[in-house]
Amino acid sequence: MPFDPFDWIDAEARRRADAGLVRTLRPRPAASGLLDLASNDYLGLTRHPDVTAAAAGAARRWGAGATGSRLVTGSTALHAELEEALAEFCGFEAALVLSSGYAANLAALTALTGHGSLIVSDAGNHASIVDGCRLSRAATAVVAHADPEAVRKALRSHEGRALAVTDSVFSVDGDAAPLPGLADACRTEGAALLVDDAHGLGVLGEGGRGALDAAGLAGGEGIVTTLTLSKSLGSQGGAVLGPARVIEHLVNAARTFIFDTGLAPAAAGAALESLRLLRREPERAGRARTVATALYERLTAAGLTAVRPDAAVVSVRAPSADAAVRWAAECRAAGILVGCFRPPSVPDGVSRLRLTARADLTEEQIATAVSVLRRTAPVS
Amino acid sequence: MPFDPFDWIDAEARRRADAGLVRTLRPRPAASGLLDLASNDYLGLTRHPDVTAAAAGAARRWGAGATGSRLVTGSTALHAELEEALAEFCGFEAALVLSSGYAANLAALTALTGHGSLIVSDAGNHASIVDGCRLSRAATAVVAHADPEAVRKALRSHEGRALAVTDSVFSVDGDAAPLPGLADACRTEGAALLVDDAHGLGVLGEGGRGALDAAGLAGGEGIVTTLTLSKSLGSQGGAVLGPARVIEHLVNAARTFIFDTGLAPAAAGAALESLRLLRREPERAGRARTVATALYERLTAAGLTAVRPDAAVVSVRAPSADAAVRWAAECRAAGILVGCFRPPSVPDGVSRLRLTARADLTEEQIATAVSVLRRTAPVS
Repeated sequence: MPFDPFDWIDAEARRRADAGLVRTLRPRPAASGLLDLASNDYLGLTRHPDVTAAAAGAARRWGAGATGSRLVTGSTALHAELEEALAEFCGFEAALVLSSGYAANLAALTALTGHGSLIVSDAGNHASIVDGCRLSRAATAVVAHADPEAVRKALRSHEGRALAVTDSVFSVDGDAAPLPGLADACRTEGAALLVDDAHGLGVLGEGGRGALDAAGLAGGEGIVTTLTLSKSLGSQGGAVLGPARVIEHLVNAARTFIFDTGLAPAAAGAALESLRLLRREPERAGRARTVATALYERLTAAGLTAVRPDAAVVSVRAPSADAAVRWAAECRAAGILVGCFRPPSVPDGVSRLRLTARADLTEEQIATAVSVLRRTAPVS
Repeated sequence: MPFDPFDWIDAEARRRADAGLVRTLRPRPAASGLLDLASNDYLGLTRHPDVTAAAAGAARRWGAGATGSRLVTGSTALHAELEEALAEFCGFEAALVLSSGYAANLAALTALTGHGSLIVSDAGNHASIVDGCRLSRAATAVVAHADPEAVRKALRSHEGRALAVTDSVFSVDGDAAPLPGLADACRTEGAALLVDDAHGLGVLGEGGRGALDAAGLAGGEGIVTTLTLSKSLGSQGGAVLGPARVIEHLVNAARTFIFDTGLAPAAAGAALESLRLLRREPERAGRARTVATALYERLTAAGLTAVRPDAAVVSVRAPSADAAVRWAAECRAAGILVGCFRPPSVPDGVSRLRLTARADLTEEQIATAVSVLRRTAPVS
């Protein structure tokens, strides 16, 4: 037998092909001409001239990379400024910036739990939270979606350290977590609450200060939040925000922070400029929500099945994975780029189109999008 | 009792303080005036004007962020160009770019193993490899450092899929893995070999093509390598390189690829420009090795205990964690920035200074560094 340690990969590829689930990268040009309803650029800041100028300026001033891990040479004054700005904007005592939101969730989940502790995790949580639970040495109880009583029950069954974790806005369906109920369950049971606000920052709360601001929970003593800099802030990276002692603990204990190169200065500079823009133009957050509601109302009025959006994500149901793929392809042919989520990327196995409501979409673009989605909808 | 889910953090902070192991971020200014022997900017490209101009240009042309995950909107033609250039430069069939080297190791280790498979991991491997092993559903056998026979024995004890994983150059001591022996053990035992070339790319091989090029193993059918774009390439990000079918498999199966936002265009553009520079100026790699050897020879001639460098990292032993910290502080006071590694960041518990030999260090800077290190050395 010839040496082939990867022969099993061919078998898996065939299985995927047979199931119609092959994923292929489709690199886009700088200007595709398509109307973007698929990205997470909720506020349309990725290409804002102030934001790209800040990225360019930071690269020229600080270099193209951070040159090392944050505890060696990878912490610049720009990183410190961004961390202060994030904490202040979102209403937390301190912040720590990492190279991605994925790394931020792994950092928080592994460093804030340990042997003998319990993580209570919503069944709809993002892959990075699921992986953080796996990577931690804690026991994990996966509970029903958006169910504070299920969280309370799981916490009650455990003696010792515990932490509940949830997305603030669930990526696939765009629905919000019941944060007040979760915070109450955690408070009464003595547990910490970790909220991934990747899809809430910039969209929810006063001027986009996020889901915890909206819920009146920002800065709470048992509350930690993770963010991405790559969605509403139009850049790259992630952050953990919380009490100063929690952030100091992460600096000393979080492996995905300690052993990773610091975020590139261009990304830090862009995120910082986006935060400044959010302060100057606080109406962007509300506009993203208004666009989402408009999309939802017009699509459901047209007979499509969608989830009422709590933030800027509008999820539209498709009858099957194949139908979802065809629907997305027809939208693309008609000039509209939409997300297409299907197994195994969706925890519940339901295929859907995922539309994102950018704050900078015009009335005309919204009307075009609705018209195309309606015209191309599969007959179910 | 007042609600305090983080009271245990104070106890851990006290324990760290008592042990003298508190880590504090020390943000640096854009121009510190210190001679940098601590970063991983081995070729001095982070601030190369062509590289920072490429970062700036990419941010302006493509935006400050990738706007979404690579399978949705986060793949640009720039990412595709970088992936082709990386694969071609390093001699592999295909490449996949991720947001960090950490994410690249998690991706490769989780997607190329699974229930029932075995990972054989060197005891000195980087934290991201250790975490990748934990995150995978494979069994992990940790074997003696740099010992192909130990790897062979572990592989022989297992029926079914197996993969051996090693750093090419170990970050802490700068020593190289015995790649030919490891490749032979894997080949005869039918296992895959995963090599993290974070510290080899740009320094080893012809013109900096990396450790696998140097060992004549690049592009081997059972061989996969992970890279960082944040060290020799002066940018941010990571990559997995290997046979095309392996890369296609990762696109479909690697969670830290699928569920993470794509690398920021500025980082992709900078790394691509650094690769072009390496082709234009292939002597940079050899110069980094020459500087490392010079540092090692002069430091040992001065009576210090150092590890003979296989790449651009020179590890100098310190008698204790306290002494290492004081030594590094005295170097800094004298204008030299060096890395200081101590428990728990070092797998063997030995504290040391870690010097990096940048290709752009001058004769005079090398002489100054040796003189300062010698003068400030602890009496042991």
